[in-house]
Amino acid sequence: MPIKHDVAGVEGAPVTHSWTSKDALLYAVGVGAGTDELAFTTENSHEVGQRVLPTMAAVIGAGVASAISEIGSFDFAMLVHGEQSFVQHREIPAEGSVTSTGRITGIYDKGSGAVVTVEGECTDDATGEALLTVGSAVFIRGEGGWGGDRGPSGDRNAAPDRSPDHSVTYAVRSDQALTYRLSGDRNPLHSDPWFATLAGFERPILHGLCTFGFTGRALLHTMCGSDPARFCSMEGRFASPVIPGEELTIEMWTIGTGECVFQTRGQDGRVVFIGGRHTFEA
Amino acid sequence: MPIKHDVAGVEGAPVTHSWTSKDALLYAVGVGAGTDELAFTTENSHEVGQRVLPTMAAVIGAGVASAISEIGSFDFAMLVHGEQSFVQHREIPAEGSVTSTGRITGIYDKGSGAVVTVEGECTDDATGEALLTVGSAVFIRGEGGWGGDRGPSGDRNAAPDRSPDHSVTYAVRSDQALTYRLSGDRNPLHSDPWFATLAGFERPILHGLCTFGFTGRALLHTMCGSDPARFCSMEGRFASPVIPGEELTIEMWTIGTGECVFQTRGQDGRVVFIGGRHTFEA
Repeated sequence: MPIKHDVAGVEGAPVTHSWTSKDALLYAVGVGAGTDELAFTTENSHEVGQRVLPTMAAVIGAGVASAISEIGSFDFAMLVHGEQSFVQHREIPAEGSVTSTGRITGIYDKGSGAVVTVEGECTDDATGEALLTVGSAVFIRGEGGWGGDRGPSGDRNAAPDRSPDHSVTYAVRSDQALTYRLSGDRNPLHSDPWFATLAGFERPILHGLCTFGFTGRALLHTMCGSDPARFCSMEGRFASPVIPGEELTIEMWTIGTGECVFQTRGQDGRVVFIGGRHTFEA
Repeated sequence: MPIKHDVAGVEGAPVTHSWTSKDALLYAVGVGAGTDELAFTTENSHEVGQRVLPTMAAVIGAGVASAISEIGSFDFAMLVHGEQSFVQHREIPAEGSVTSTGRITGIYDKGSGAVVTVEGECTDDATGEALLTVGSAVFIRGEGGWGGDRGPSGDRNAAPDRSPDHSVTYAVRSDQALTYRLSGDRNPLHSDPWFATLAGFERPILHGLCTFGFTGRALLHTMCGSDPARFCSMEGRFASPVIPGEELTIEMWTIGTGECVFQTRGQDGRVVFIGGRHTFEA
């Protein structure tokens, strides 16, 4: 049975997600935060209160993405994470709970597959206030060709034709995915060589949201003075798989007050996350 | 008020500790298990069932050590972990619950401090069967000098006067303690430079039980063919702090069928864990 195509505007069921201080610490080490980021990796360092990496928005707000199930059943193994975005309305507390409601904002026919975009709000259950707006786009191979709208090209936030204003390089350990997956995404594509081969990869690939987390750390420390309260939003598009063990280089260009575009390169120079835009309190 | 000295044989209160599959995976990455140890670091790899590193006994059986509180109140900051041992009666399941009861087996006057030894049984709550026997010894600085028994010398399981039969070297990442601590021991001595300096160290030191876990992995893979069901017991004494970032080398000497002695060296060659003895199903 093909997926439904007349689903723009359809809402998914609300999903509640709670997290503890420990979950936030585990997320931080999962995206490579270390001994020089004790505000994110410890809860009891002297004169350092625990803070949360803003990109954890994509984990605690993952309920938004469950709206995708409104298109009907499809082979989940054919789904590729295409884009990710979030707006942080308030700083994420060290522990808490949100209720997320997503809605399908678009479904596009790319021929070889379908692109489905979702967006939604995450409300802090303790205060009733909006905490996050989270969006993502997925590409579902094999589900295109019904003669629908191709949708926007996706080529937003192009990098300026000059050297980056800032550049940060992080090593990604070869076993990084084994820690990151403990934050929730246990897809064996990221850990089991047998499964990765079956899916057409030479070896397990890094979670896209782990690359997203490394990238967000670079933005936070470069643009926000390491203060997550100044981190307003982040968006961009996954362009190439990352293999655990390679270096990531995040390139940033300031394009206005409190605004930059960015992209992330793998160790061989290819762009792995493209069309990035980040806003912050300058 | 000094600690009590007439406490040998006194039992602590029973302590129940439960763990999940995720806790076991987090413990494994906390002691450095990686992509070539998927039985311990994943739960869903093809034809690989989840297993538990035997040294997790020291974490799930930590309730045994709470018997130490029977000596009365003392400055916890003066406590140093001296020895650790366990017997694995049955393989630790991927998730479960144990009830541990410890008793004080000895209290010794070392002049500059007191040594307190505890030992106890951990019963599997699901089956009622003995799962582990766990023992440890702590040194409490400043609590000696009451004229008590000095106790045994502790020089057990000396390494033979020949080259090791087996030697395994593991790198310990500089941020290793930030992951290990999420298994429960949040003492800032292992993460906060300010606190470590206060305690007399140049920088945070690795958890003794993290060194114990790295050492146990070497024993498991070298002596037990990576099969935790063959791992019977392990004991030894902490001899020197380990600084995260240095290499550990575990040296092993077979001394009989199913029996070896071992020690662990730091990167500069000093012995950090001494007098080790390991038994296994040959």
